[in-house]
Amino acid sequence: MSRWPVDARERLERAAIELFVEKGFAATTVPEITARAGLTTRTFHRHFADKREVLYAGNEIPEFTTRLIAEAPASWTPMRVVVDGLLAVAAARFEGRREDLRVRREIVRSDPGLGERDLRKWADVGSAGTAAFIARGVEPMRAALLAETAVTLLRVSVGEWLDSDDDRGLGEILRGAWEALRDATSLDGP
Amino acid sequence: MSRWPVDARERLERAAIELFVEKGFAATTVPEITARAGLTTRTFHRHFADKREVLYAGNEIPEFTTRLIAEAPASWTPMRVVVDGLLAVAAARFEGRREDLRVRREIVRSDPGLGERDLRKWADVGSAGTAAFIARGVEPMRAALLAETAVTLLRVSVGEWLDSDDDRGLGEILRGAWEALRDATSLDGP
Repeated sequence: MSRWPVDARERLERAAIELFVEKGFAATTVPEITARAGLTTRTFHRHFADKREVLYAGNEIPEFTTRLIAEAPASWTPMRVVVDGLLAVAAARFEGRREDLRVRREIVRSDPGLGERDLRKWADVGSAGTAAFIARGVEPMRAALLAETAVTLLRVSVGEWLDSDDDRGLGEILRGAWEALRDATSLDGP
Repeated sequence: MSRWPVDARERLERAAIELFVEKGFAATTVPEITARAGLTTRTFHRHFADKREVLYAGNEIPEFTTRLIAEAPASWTPMRVVVDGLLAVAAARFEGRREDLRVRREIVRSDPGLGERDLRKWADVGSAGTAAFIARGVEPMRAALLAETAVTLLRVSVGEWLDSDDDRGLGEILRGAWEALRDATSLDGP
């Protein structure tokens, strides 16, 4: 019993994902998840508000974003903060999880409500980044452009990474995306 | 009677917006909207699926985006298509409507469900733009970066335009936003 509480959250998460894949997200109930995990619904609700939050809780990218921007050296340009921050997010939250994230993406795609929750999640990252750049002294419109562009780079790169079957890491794809954007934003660019 | 059908849609829209401001979006009913407009609920449903769609129907930016990208000269760089397209969208759908759009923004901000509908609307514009650039022969990841960056430029610029009290038009703000993004995407930039 003694080590159960340590991995209860992870067992619930695994059981939930398995059931979402097998039965579909809408048809899966919390008691089914807890039965498969061998835990109680009380334990479930200590970790998650509802079954939807199994896919989102613990994935605090807005807070992580705020911290990365606040703690970046004052001498860095905002774009260096963005690129460095994106590589840090990729390393900490994405690399090594490609298969798992592919499975989660399929679940999100299968349910319109989850799709909206996903849009909200990315919008929250953009808002957190905007506020953090304003706190660094960046003018508000420029802060919003930088933060939303960072979200675009991350979303598009994650999509490419999950779609591709080659050995490129997310960091490498992110660098390529940023270079492509930099080149494209010139009217005279390719 | 004869000219009523022509402006029925506009009268319903005005009555709905007035009521959303006076009573709040959630508290307003379709019969109240039709009573104020002096029309029937049957007429309302000929124009709108529900009261939420009063704020979104007729605002076909995804279709407009697809057409602008498809019809741009083949010799143009994608970024020229983006900048030119954004100025066209600004002129056709935004300029001259600042007060009206401010009122609508307040309504959207007052209701979480409308906020999610708004995120969905912008996501649809990004998807339409991505597909249209792919149809022009742009590689998929680059197409997504261009389309999502265009959405960022438009969203951020519209926000700045609605927040500001000076005489700048949306087109002028869009040009400034694009220049700021172009300068910022260089690591050596300001």
